[in-house]
Amino acid sequence: MKTKILLKESEMPTHWYNVVADMPNPPTPPLGPDGQPVGPDALAAIFPEEIIKQEVSSDRWIKIPEEVREVLRLWRPSPLFRAHRLEKMLNTPAKIFYKNESVSPAGSHKPNTAVAQAYYNKQAGIKKLTTETGAGQWGCSLALAGQMFGLEVEVFMVKVSYGQKPYRRTMMRTWGANVHASPTNLTESGRSILAKDPNSEGSLGVAISEAVEIAANRPDTNYALGSVLNHVLLHQTIIGEEAKKQMSMVGEYPDMVFAPCGGGSNFGGIAFPFFADKAAGKQVELIAVEPTSCPTLTKGTYAYDFGDAIGLTPLMKMYTLGHDFMPPGIHAGGLRYHGDSALISQLYNEGLLGAVAVPQTETFESGVLFAKSEGIVPAPESTHAIAAVIREAKRCAETGEAKTLLFNLSGHGHFDMTSYDRFFAGELEDYEYPDEAIKESLKHLPQVG
Amino acid sequence: MKTKILLKESEMPTHWYNVVADMPNPPTPPLGPDGQPVGPDALAAIFPEEIIKQEVSSDRWIKIPEEVREVLRLWRPSPLFRAHRLEKMLNTPAKIFYKNESVSPAGSHKPNTAVAQAYYNKQAGIKKLTTETGAGQWGCSLALAGQMFGLEVEVFMVKVSYGQKPYRRTMMRTWGANVHASPTNLTESGRSILAKDPNSEGSLGVAISEAVEIAANRPDTNYALGSVLNHVLLHQTIIGEEAKKQMSMVGEYPDMVFAPCGGGSNFGGIAFPFFADKAAGKQVELIAVEPTSCPTLTKGTYAYDFGDAIGLTPLMKMYTLGHDFMPPGIHAGGLRYHGDSALISQLYNEGLLGAVAVPQTETFESGVLFAKSEGIVPAPESTHAIAAVIREAKRCAETGEAKTLLFNLSGHGHFDMTSYDRFFAGELEDYEYPDEAIKESLKHLPQVG
Repeated sequence: MKTKILLKESEMPTHWYNVVADMPNPPTPPLGPDGQPVGPDALAAIFPEEIIKQEVSSDRWIKIPEEVREVLRLWRPSPLFRAHRLEKMLNTPAKIFYKNESVSPAGSHKPNTAVAQAYYNKQAGIKKLTTETGAGQWGCSLALAGQMFGLEVEVFMVKVSYGQKPYRRTMMRTWGANVHASPTNLTESGRSILAKDPNSEGSLGVAISEAVEIAANRPDTNYALGSVLNHVLLHQTIIGEEAKKQMSMVGEYPDMVFAPCGGGSNFGGIAFPFFADKAAGKQVELIAVEPTSCPTLTKGTYAYDFGDAIGLTPLMKMYTLGHDFMPPGIHAGGLRYHGDSALISQLYNEGLLGAVAVPQTETFESGVLFAKSEGIVPAPESTHAIAAVIREAKRCAETGEAKTLLFNLSGHGHFDMTSYDRFFAGELEDYEYPDEAIKESLKHLPQVG
Repeated sequence: MKTKILLKESEMPTHWYNVVADMPNPPTPPLGPDGQPVGPDALAAIFPEEIIKQEVSSDRWIKIPEEVREVLRLWRPSPLFRAHRLEKMLNTPAKIFYKNESVSPAGSHKPNTAVAQAYYNKQAGIKKLTTETGAGQWGCSLALAGQMFGLEVEVFMVKVSYGQKPYRRTMMRTWGANVHASPTNLTESGRSILAKDPNSEGSLGVAISEAVEIAANRPDTNYALGSVLNHVLLHQTIIGEEAKKQMSMVGEYPDMVFAPCGGGSNFGGIAFPFFADKAAGKQVELIAVEPTSCPTLTKGTYAYDFGDAIGLTPLMKMYTLGHDFMPPGIHAGGLRYHGDSALISQLYNEGLLGAVAVPQTETFESGVLFAKSEGIVPAPESTHAIAAVIREAKRCAETGEAKTLLFNLSGHGHFDMTSYDRFFAGELEDYEYPDEAIKESLKHLPQVG
């Protein structure tokens, strides 16, 4: 019984897949405060030209530079696994496959785009990249990527995480990055927050503002974002492309593809290459899995909103809970985002993608079941996909359907063991965000134009 | 430039290699307190028959049961990497290869034997395995393996680690193991220590005594050891066998093979299959790398000594610093062992293996250099091999020799980031154990007979 399906290095994809080419409608443009579409020029202060081109491209295939492929080869192609033991434990006729993105040195899928972004910035003569990080997955990924191309990396880490999650902070330093607890005194944004509350524990929104501010003001410095934007999702499509090849190597094609969905790069990365087939008439369900505590797709509204909490970014048309929505402190930090990728939002709005929300304790129960059967201890984000897959596999056990299910195991949980500890201690809560509260935060949606 | 050399699942070794078949002299027998060789029967209280057979076997090849191979397939064959980026950073003509054993769910090479031991115990009708663990690598490995075969696992974790390193403790629980802070009140051994010192922080020796005591007194319970013994090294030879195949796939053969050496399973695992070639006349240097703070091979004496600190085990002829030698609290917990495998000791005594000791700060410097070039943050144990390889690669840079170097990257450092933190803070010390102190602890060697 084959367990791992491996691609050779020579079989690693040579191009990223751009879903825009197969969307039934053109993507909605980002808008400025005046309600007018934001041109590529407006992004030039913080992104290099090649990235901006990718952000607005409608070409179906975009070549992966050989220098990027060379770094990706440190862990790619990543293995695809058949979860024989999980299937057996669930006594299901369903076939379960997972793409293992936890094998990157940073432990998640995030370096796929970090490496590409570092490369294009290096090519553009940029010396330093700034970014924000919550628990540290994205900060680690950019630190790793910057190191590989000889770029300085400056990370604004949300202060509460900086104190509580020192391990990823140390990992970033091991890769040579400079890490600050945000809010800092280094930026206007940071100082304005500290003036109001000197003990502020920070937030992802504030950290983004700090990182963008520095990049915008220094010609040799750019900013890198780990999710949401089109080019980020583009770089992640290598996951789904590889997965398609690997499934076909064992003569399989998924009936359903699942991935956790926060900003969307995890889900877009595995799902978009299958969307290409769906657009061509193939039957395949693509399911974004989100926490019930931050139910952007399942309970949000499709509207123009800011990407950050403060209102510095252009407006993007997306499913949103309101940019000042503050999700509860669940342990899947990567899924605590008020909005979602514009591309995913548009396709979801058109009924071409599915979404489901799962509560926190169910995700940890699923993660433990996965660890007990398949060995790997998954990241709290990844357990969301696992939970949805287990629901479906159990349904198959009842109906007798032998569906083929694929999910993205986006990361390992080695830096999340305190969360598992709290789960075992019965301390985790299931937040069901009240509809009233969502209605309230949606009242603060910006007026367009 | 090929980076990863992968074997197919079908190319995973079908047999373990037993170095005893190629040793110039038969292994020295373990002795009882009376100075007489200990027969297999004496081990039957804590080990299943198949393990005991392997412990005393001189067959060159021992079949890996299909049930064991099926579990190993969750991460094996493990990848072999060419360290192109490290070579470039060192500007060396040497070719550097590493076997990546950090890809197992427990994060090190240890599950290779844990899985085999769990299987043989399950076959023998055993319901529960006991063991000890320091930082938790071995405990995690046995927890994982026990879970895979439906065995209960009870781990005695050294109390100081239990408090300071909660993450591996939680990982063991995720895989269903029962973890105690040792010394406990559950055993005579534990109670005797607590009677003398109620605040005892424990030691590996005490934890071994507790685990062995429970296994010896319960018919349905056995004990599992993670290193030192012949069968443990046997199970690890799958590492070197795979590495040989992978090197030959790219037309290479190592001039030198390096691995960290504590109890010896890491080093024996990668080195023994190459020893087979050496015994047949091939030129290859096999180098055990140990800490200067616990210099068993480089400064110890070749004599009969106890395997544990208290004196419960049979006497084994090995390089030892004295069974009551207490190595300083360095961060490579897996290398803090007073003795060494009897097989490795004998071959080293006969001049067939090499050894080198490296100081702690050099190992962390090497680990950071490795992370910056190859991405992976290595375990403190593994950084010892890296340090020795970097020394040799730098020597090659001076002499112009294009040697081929291979080492075992035995584990990742995801649970050792506090150690890296202390390194960055300049808080790590280099312990050079004084010759006088070693002489002193060697005075306590047991009288044989």
